[in-house]
Amino acid sequence: MNFRIILSVLGLLLRLLGPMMLIPLGVALYYGESPYPFAVAFSLTTIVGAMLSFQYSSADEGDWEKREGFAIVAFGWFAAALFGSIPYMFDGVTPLNALFESMSGFTTTGATVFINIETHSRSLLFWRSMTQWIGGMGIIMLFIAILPKLGVAGRQMFRAEAPGPKEDQLKPRIRETAKILWAVYVSISVLELLLLLIAGMSFYDACTHTFTTMACGGFSPYADSVAAFNSPLIEGIITLFMFIAGANFALHYKTLYSDKKSLLKDNEFKFYFVIVGLATVLLTLLLWRDTPDSIPTSFRYAVFQVVSILTTTGYATTDFNLWTDSGKVVLLAMMFIGGCAGSTAGGIKVVRLLLLLKYARSELFKAVHPKAVRPIKFNGKSVPGDIMHAIISFVVIYFLIFLISSAILSIFGMDLTSSVTASIATLGNIGPGFNVVGPMANFSTVPAIGKLVLIANMWIGRLEVFTVIVMLTPEFWRR
Amino acid sequence: MNFRIILSVLGLLLRLLGPMMLIPLGVALYYGESPYPFAVAFSLTTIVGAMLSFQYSSADEGDWEKREGFAIVAFGWFAAALFGSIPYMFDGVTPLNALFESMSGFTTTGATVFINIETHSRSLLFWRSMTQWIGGMGIIMLFIAILPKLGVAGRQMFRAEAPGPKEDQLKPRIRETAKILWAVYVSISVLELLLLLIAGMSFYDACTHTFTTMACGGFSPYADSVAAFNSPLIEGIITLFMFIAGANFALHYKTLYSDKKSLLKDNEFKFYFVIVGLATVLLTLLLWRDTPDSIPTSFRYAVFQVVSILTTTGYATTDFNLWTDSGKVVLLAMMFIGGCAGSTAGGIKVVRLLLLLKYARSELFKAVHPKAVRPIKFNGKSVPGDIMHAIISFVVIYFLIFLISSAILSIFGMDLTSSVTASIATLGNIGPGFNVVGPMANFSTVPAIGKLVLIANMWIGRLEVFTVIVMLTPEFWRR
Ligand SMILES: [K+]
Ligand SMILES: [K+]
Repeated sequence: MNFRIILSVLGLLLRLLGPMMLIPLGVALYYGESPYPFAVAFSLTTIVGAMLSFQYSSADEGDWEKREGFAIVAFGWFAAALFGSIPYMFDGVTPLNALFESMSGFTTTGATVFINIETHSRSLLFWRSMTQWIGGMGIIMLFIAILPKLGVAGRQMFRAEAPGPKEDQLKPRIRETAKILWAVYVSISVLELLLLLIAGMSFYDACTHTFTTMACGGFSPYADSVAAFNSPLIEGIITLFMFIAGANFALHYKTLYSDKKSLLKDNEFKFYFVIVGLATVLLTLLLWRDTPDSIPTSFRYAVFQVVSILTTTGYATTDFNLWTDSGKVVLLAMMFIGGCAGSTAGGIKVVRLLLLLKYARSELFKAVHPKAVRPIKFNGKSVPGDIMHAIISFVVIYFLIFLISSAILSIFGMDLTSSVTASIATLGNIGPGFNVVGPMANFSTVPAIGKLVLIANMWIGRLEVFTVIVMLTPEFWRR
Repeated sequence: MNFRIILSVLGLLLRLLGPMMLIPLGVALYYGESPYPFAVAFSLTTIVGAMLSFQYSSADEGDWEKREGFAIVAFGWFAAALFGSIPYMFDGVTPLNALFESMSGFTTTGATVFINIETHSRSLLFWRSMTQWIGGMGIIMLFIAILPKLGVAGRQMFRAEAPGPKEDQLKPRIRETAKILWAVYVSISVLELLLLLIAGMSFYDACTHTFTTMACGGFSPYADSVAAFNSPLIEGIITLFMFIAGANFALHYKTLYSDKKSLLKDNEFKFYFVIVGLATVLLTLLLWRDTPDSIPTSFRYAVFQVVSILTTTGYATTDFNLWTDSGKVVLLAMMFIGGCAGSTAGGIKVVRLLLLLKYARSELFKAVHPKAVRPIKFNGKSVPGDIMHAIISFVVIYFLIFLISSAILSIFGMDLTSSVTASIATLGNIGPGFNVVGPMANFSTVPAIGKLVLIANMWIGRLEVFTVIVMLTPEFWRR
């Protein structure tokens, strides 16, 4: 293991992260709040980054191997969360809670330990939303540009989908792809920002909500989340952009710059669309049956909540924790699916579910016709066996982590529904669950050990499981 | 599809089932209860069986193909449940409830719709327990002798394990294997019966509890289940025999007649043993912490309940529905595992879980060493790829059915915990779940459509999913 290269790249990441903290510093000055939290965080982050870069500058030219790649991604995310948590501590947040909130930000989870969100400073809440936007950009790059190089969990599949110049060395390709994705992400964000402003949001609200929509993040500066605006127009805009953010950004790029029908041709996007449609219809009917609301009102809540949970954003326009269990079941199913590959969404991902279903279907076929060969197709191409292997292992390990963390939470005193939904809500980077971690509640009541488990969940889930879990195997560290 | 051969074998099955109804008829006469329910059921079953056999006698010589095999198994079990339900209807049970109870019997599930069990006649409750014993025998045969021939869900693996003469035609082999397994099943049953009698049970109680222990069934003629006896000795005996019944009967045969260490050498049995041990220790500690009970009392409840749920028997010595959620989580985890392959237990099965874990582990290894080849081993042999495929598809389809049935129950008004546990308790042939379907409650409050879903679950789960589900594919029916 080449630790020098890892520390060198971590130095670079921190040098990029530090200056971003000047933006909430500006917000603090604008609102007459203390700029010191951000000044200190900026200084510490940048200095540590510079020191690492200086110390290990020669390493920059060394070899990247797969293992170093895993370590850089995993520790990079962790370092961002760690340094990003500094400003929270100035606002009276305990170190554990600050790390929880910061990890929840950079992993675009949106689970909060804040009891009274509005009592925190405007600048801190701005930073909190902004960390999600930064995390969202990171995740698109990770999924489309970095993980395929590391051969992780079936994303070889999407290598062909990634925009930019074709295969050569890792670094130039990442740089090119990053630029293109950055442009797409920023463009769509600006569009949402403008629409939210037109819909009547303040600039502050429009910024923070754009940050957290585009990242499928779900942090809101208001305890009532999007329900605070009580505006069907705003809900409609946010629903649309959550839906966009939950789809593949490589396809967005293609749709914008080459083939207009890229999205519509994609099997994953079609299935994603069908899931949203069917779940919305079912949930509308259930809400209409079980609540006093009319069909249009039921639809308004249903479509927002289905898209919010399926894309793992986690916004709420109503306290769905108060719904009957039949409505909750629809949301729970969404929690176990997640958005599309190459999006900012978390979860198991639509493509994995789709391929698993095709796989099971093909085995049923084989049970009747043992000698017939019928390959599993995705976007017209046969899916190679090793991609199916990676997907299956992903799902097995994902469920294993989900079960273990549910069990730990429950053993440390949380009720079953809260344990289970808190686990999936963090592992899937969704944010809220049910009961004590419901959308109008928060994670402050989780015992300390539970918070550590959930921090790990957010980190593991966001980095597509393998990136972190592979470091637990002895082979990873062996020379 | 050769329907003639299917109907011919169904005829044979009914001719075998009919005379078994003379035993509860004898019980009815002994207790001075009406023998008519069993006389009518015996006559109808035997006459229909004889008519089918007569009508399709020539078909007996025809060809068995895989598809006919699936259909015979699936419809055979259904026919047994259907004809076995006749005696219930004479005791004032509605046809739907009678089918539910009878399917619960023949599938060794043990979920009951009886509100006051003790109000039903002694002979009916005897028959109810006896159907589980018949079903248990059927399931061992199905798993060890029939399904490997049909190439279903990874049981090719265990072909080598099956006792009896080596490969030749299907029919003589099934007959030989059936005889051997029958002998093992009866011998162990007689041993349990004797021990229960020595422990002080009445002959009636010893018979009914032997029937339902050996089948991992869980029906008890008492509403309080095994708690009715309040005897640590009886609980110990039942725990031991549940544990035996939840292990592979082909290995029991080998242990008894050839290699004494067969069980101890088997990877699945070792893992089964480890699961029981760890879960018992954990649950003992949790009960000790969360209830006023001492460590020994906590252990007494824990070991019984862990073995009862893991082996999918479903007996209770305490109302575990009243435990805190942390204790329930341990049982819930057991519900998703189940017993060993080739046992009378249901569920996903220990071997599938073990191989899935090995599979995921090997992918983690591959993530670090992409070129290294490390095959998945089971009992010292490499597991062929197609067996892994079959196991994975099994688990995917199993979860899919579990989710769909949970959703349907929940949509039709059951609370979430009840819906989820009722689904897994029937699909895994366990019996009781939590909440409204808890161990001291019953399934009578489930709406009619829910009961139909659960009947299907019991049937599908007992027949290892593929046997039934494959009939839903168009390829199955195409020539
Ligand atoms: K989120
Ligand atoms: K059972």
